[in-house]
Amino acid sequence: MENNKRYQAGLEAMEQLFSHEVRNGMEGMKLISPDLWEMIVSFGFGDLYSRKTLCHAQREIITLTSLITQGAFDQLRVHLQAALNVGLTKEEITEIIIHCAGYVGFPKAVQAMGIAGEIFKETKE
Amino acid sequence: MENNKRYQAGLEAMEQLFSHEVRNGMEGMKLISPDLWEMIVSFGFGDLYSRKTLCHAQREIITLTSLITQGAFDQLRVHLQAALNVGLTKEEITEIIIHCAGYVGFPKAVQAMGIAGEIFKETKE
Amino acid sequence: MENNKRYQAGLEAMEQLFSHEVRNGMEGMKLISPDLWEMIVSFGFGDLYSRKTLCHAQREIITLTSLITQGAFDQLRVHLQAALNVGLTKEEITEIIIHCAGYVGFPKAVQAMGIAGEIFKETKE
Amino acid sequence: MENNKRYQAGLEAMEQLFSHEVRNGMEGMKLISPDLWEMIVSFGFGDLYSRKTLCHAQREIITLTSLITQGAFDQLRVHLQAALNVGLTKEEITEIIIHCAGYVGFPKAVQAMGIAGEIFKETKE
Amino acid sequence: MENNKRYQAGLEAMEQLFSHEVRNGMEGMKLISPDLWEMIVSFGFGDLYSRKTLCHAQREIITLTSLITQGAFDQLRVHLQAALNVGLTKEEITEIIIHCAGYVGFPKAVQAMGIAGEIFKETKE
Amino acid sequence: MENNKRYQAGLEAMEQLFSHEVRNGMEGMKLISPDLWEMIVSFGFGDLYSRKTLCHAQREIITLTSLITQGAFDQLRVHLQAALNVGLTKEEITEIIIHCAGYVGFPKAVQAMGIAGEIFKETKE
Repeated sequence: MENNKRYQAGLEAMEQLFSHEVRNGMEGMKLISPDLWEMIVSFGFGDLYSRKTLCHAQREIITLTSLITQGAFDQLRVHLQAALNVGLTKEEITEIIIHCAGYVGFPKAVQAMGIAGEIFKETKE
Repeated sequence: MENNKRYQAGLEAMEQLFSHEVRNGMEGMKLISPDLWEMIVSFGFGDLYSRKTLCHAQREIITLTSLITQGAFDQLRVHLQAALNVGLTKEEITEIIIHCAGYVGFPKAVQAMGIAGEIFKETKE
Repeated sequence: MENNKRYQAGLEAMEQLFSHEVRNGMEGMKLISPDLWEMIVSFGFGDLYSRKTLCHAQREIITLTSLITQGAFDQLRVHLQAALNVGLTKEEITEIIIHCAGYVGFPKAVQAMGIAGEIFKETKE
Repeated sequence: MENNKRYQAGLEAMEQLFSHEVRNGMEGMKLISPDLWEMIVSFGFGDLYSRKTLCHAQREIITLTSLITQGAFDQLRVHLQAALNVGLTKEEITEIIIHCAGYVGFPKAVQAMGIAGEIFKETKE
Repeated sequence: MENNKRYQAGLEAMEQLFSHEVRNGMEGMKLISPDLWEMIVSFGFGDLYSRKTLCHAQREIITLTSLITQGAFDQLRVHLQAALNVGLTKEEITEIIIHCAGYVGFPKAVQAMGIAGEIFKETKE
Repeated sequence: MENNKRYQAGLEAMEQLFSHEVRNGMEGMKLISPDLWEMIVSFGFGDLYSRKTLCHAQREIITLTSLITQGAFDQLRVHLQAALNVGLTKEEITEIIIHCAGYVGFPKAVQAMGIAGEIFKETKE
């Protein structure tokens, strides 16, 4: 697995997106399903995040929006951190969530903003 | 209604996003519900699209992603056109949809790309 | 099947909700799956619409809202007609859709209002 | 902000819907995003809940249904309390959830009824 | 209620699907809404799980997939246990979740796999 | 692209699932986005459908269920045909949809059954 180019590209993208601590948490998946872990890394991060045309910050705009829209709030946490790591500011992230209010309604936007508030507190500069 | 600052801001944003023809089509809403039309213009476009921090192209990234994620394919059509109007390229739009494949699954991404293909044909430069 | 009390209750509820023409269209389901048809009538309409505490108009508020929220726009058509049949007015239906805009976002509310506009035209008094 | 008619209408609606304690909890949003707070109050509650034709109880039927249908169970809690505050009875709320079972399936209805059970216990008269 | 054939069929199906402990937990619903409980047992389990053509293992494939797709992760827990009880293996359950990744995207598949990991640990043979 | 093992596995799976005519239709994606086409074939069909433990018929149970649950009715059409091609019978497919009624509600189940009725007519033996 470790020799695979796609898998390596995925690991590199994950290093830019997530802190060491978060990646350790995510790696727990290897113990449950090594195959799903391989797909997450190779496809989810390798194939997608290493593509050109859109930078990581733009890709995180897409990821955050999709997670908010589908109400995937557990995964939203780590991607809010990733968004900050790749250069989106708190103001930009706040704006993404506000913009979502018109497209998914207030319940999901409100829940997302609450989580963002917690993440922002944890990452106070 | 027409004096309202929020409504005017909405009309201005809509002029940058949509062609005259598309806006005429959207205005059919006035005949069904003038109040919903007022909210669409004032809140949906006025309050959201005239905000700072994110430009219209970034806002269309969010809008497209949310529409694809929720499977709102009828509204996706006009926003694909809007995305091109505010400066997103066909390559960038294609990348947004590809990125969505990992977050919403292939069925919705495939349907979105099919629609994008139709819109791209119609707007061949 | 026809002796079943739940099924009979369902047929009675459907007579109050839907025109003869609409019910004929729905009965096409008998040819595809008689069992699903039985469940639609007995559970969907018999068990639910014949319950006390909420009248049919209130139940149609719930049904319309759920269909709009899940984007089930094909089924929305017959229930918009049902809503009018059980006493909800065009103004009330319009208000239900407007209220949804805040809870599901504008894309689905806009699509629902467009369909309502078509149904209202067809049922011009 | 406080001078704005829409914002004031929103605050008034919120006083009828939510207890002092719940409103205090909701106001935490001001610290994360004052702009989203302004929209929640002005649009979410001001523009929507102060409209005519449907009373607050009917509007809560719509809100509860939409929240259950989209699985927004965190926001469902405060709106179950709001529903009781504006005059919906426990029997009526129970019926709304039961009716949803046919339209969104049993998983979401079951989860909603479990939460309603907790809210009912807390508000034992 | 207890005499009803559909209700009895439902109780029998539930005995095959769920442990005594889980069924006790589910019966808490009787105290909140005896009517919803009756529908869960009679329709949800009686009418559906006692049907022919598909065995319980195949029905659990459908149930697990639908719960993952709609993000109903609370109900997923008891159905992961039910799936093991009716003969699906951990490998088969893992494969169902992996297959879902392509159809609902990675966020929901990842969350489902995490929950499956917890259930598998609890049921270590 | 054509040398890639994953891509070849995907093409082989697609030959078992879809008729020549359907595959031709799907290949239109190559003209819009060759990259998304490569992912559909390599990941969607290659990585997923060539895995062991679950046979194609079981995988189609999952696919159909997920499409119905998310309301992806356009993609449902080709997968209903695929399900028949890999050995699921009309009775089994009908049962899958009926089972979904309890988990996603009747609107989506009814729409799915209507489409199944059309597909069954087209493939009358």
